[in-house]
Amino acid sequence: MTERKGAKAVWVAVDWGTSHLRVWPMASDDTPLCRIDSDMGMGGLDPSAYESTLTALLEPYFTPGTALDVICCGMAGSRQGWSEAPYATAPCRPPSLDLATRVETSDARLNVYILPGVKQHDPADVMRGEETQIAGALAADPGMDGVICLPGTHTKWVSVHSGEITSFATFLTGELFQLISQQSVLRHTLASGGWDTSAFEAGCRAAIEAPQALANALFRLRAEALLANLDPVEARSRASGYLIGLEIEDMRPRWQGKTVVLVGENEIAQAYAAALATQGAETVLADAEEFTLAGLRSARAQIT
Amino acid sequence: MTERKGAKAVWVAVDWGTSHLRVWPMASDDTPLCRIDSDMGMGGLDPSAYESTLTALLEPYFTPGTALDVICCGMAGSRQGWSEAPYATAPCRPPSLDLATRVETSDARLNVYILPGVKQHDPADVMRGEETQIAGALAADPGMDGVICLPGTHTKWVSVHSGEITSFATFLTGELFQLISQQSVLRHTLASGGWDTSAFEAGCRAAIEAPQALANALFRLRAEALLANLDPVEARSRASGYLIGLEIEDMRPRWQGKTVVLVGENEIAQAYAAALATQGAETVLADAEEFTLAGLRSARAQIT
Repeated sequence: MTERKGAKAVWVAVDWGTSHLRVWPMASDDTPLCRIDSDMGMGGLDPSAYESTLTALLEPYFTPGTALDVICCGMAGSRQGWSEAPYATAPCRPPSLDLATRVETSDARLNVYILPGVKQHDPADVMRGEETQIAGALAADPGMDGVICLPGTHTKWVSVHSGEITSFATFLTGELFQLISQQSVLRHTLASGGWDTSAFEAGCRAAIEAPQALANALFRLRAEALLANLDPVEARSRASGYLIGLEIEDMRPRWQGKTVVLVGENEIAQAYAAALATQGAETVLADAEEFTLAGLRSARAQIT
Repeated sequence: MTERKGAKAVWVAVDWGTSHLRVWPMASDDTPLCRIDSDMGMGGLDPSAYESTLTALLEPYFTPGTALDVICCGMAGSRQGWSEAPYATAPCRPPSLDLATRVETSDARLNVYILPGVKQHDPADVMRGEETQIAGALAADPGMDGVICLPGTHTKWVSVHSGEITSFATFLTGELFQLISQQSVLRHTLASGGWDTSAFEAGCRAAIEAPQALANALFRLRAEALLANLDPVEARSRASGYLIGLEIEDMRPRWQGKTVVLVGENEIAQAYAAALATQGAETVLADAEEFTLAGLRSARAQIT
């Protein structure tokens, strides 16, 4: 995204997650002037530090005498965040602005809205931020009927029908992979990067065939490294395949017979696409940033 | 174990693992004078430090002019350990002393033998230390025909027939539980101790019914904590049940119709017994230290 000089910010789109903060000052035509990336995520911020963090980043974009609407999604709305935003309860439409939390700021140049998350009671689950990407997907395709997968540290699978989030499921898969590859006895067996597609696919298939064998299959990577010099990139890819294969198998009833919309174009989204392909499932990759901005734009359009 | 004053050490039994070192100076009647526990495990030791670590602990037990036989099992025999001891290949009898590595020491008061581990080629697996406990089990019951489970950070299931280790399988289960409960986003959801048997059993049953749901079931604990104040001890017990249940299910063909000998009397062994009981399997708990000593004793008896 190239920064556009001269144009003025009219409002601000914000995605405030656990580890990242993304800020888009928006022009009057609802397109971003630029994107500001910061590591001042919710995880390391005291509630009192949110306002100053944001004003420091926005300083070049204020117009004297005018307040900027700031539309925020993500973990900034959690209990440990800036100001708690309630959860809407699925099945529901992605929460609209009238459910947002208005944050009192001492700086009058900010009108801050934090969008709610979505919760589900049985089985229990929560999201904060992804609902805004779903709103973005629905803004582009209001009649969408299918499943959206948002890969990440905690991957989410969201079923969508008639404009509603009907149900969803979150998986610890990405975090498990990080812990296994960086903290466990396998950290010396698994490469820190690199990719072997056929090893990944073999891992997927093995997990789908015998999901209960996970903890043995993982140890076996170490044994193969000791006894047969297993290649570290192959080991890493197979381990990732075991974990993602397990998840794919669990979500089979959700994606069977449907095209899965994968939000993200990074290595993780590609891996999910490859895993689903081993099972004959069709996928389309969507741009995560575009969905987030579209969702925040819909919310902003609700300010009257 | 009460220390016996006055009696002399004739030989020394040693279990040198990754994180622990256990040393038993043995009397002429093959019973231990005492047990010395140390945290000088293989994981933190330079190869040059093994001899001095051992002589410092044994100083009170040397008899002038006499060398002590030291029979060692465990990770001290790994490539990164004191001196590499080869692996025997399963199916095989637990390795005897003639396969042991003699370690050159500069201190003439030590005659050090390190017992080999056991490897398996397909599926790849390795053990170092457990084979000596199996030797101990077979010393007590030479006709044993069944399965021995050695619960721990890397739990092993060993099938035994006609005095041989016929095959075995190692699981990363214990390490996964540690990482999840101490390092993941669930560290605030799971209590650091405490036990809820019915939650553990429910976790086992859920994992056996839907092993592929592991990463979702784990995240659900966090959601239940957020939305329904799930009790941290209940969460911990259910998480442990998911992981151990998965393993039990994978090992079903090995234990079905047999009595499982569980080596250990600690909380982990009790959990495995409870998990197996949910599936109608019978277990007997055996004393791990007794098995280790019996195995080392058998090896020592082979010195001619």
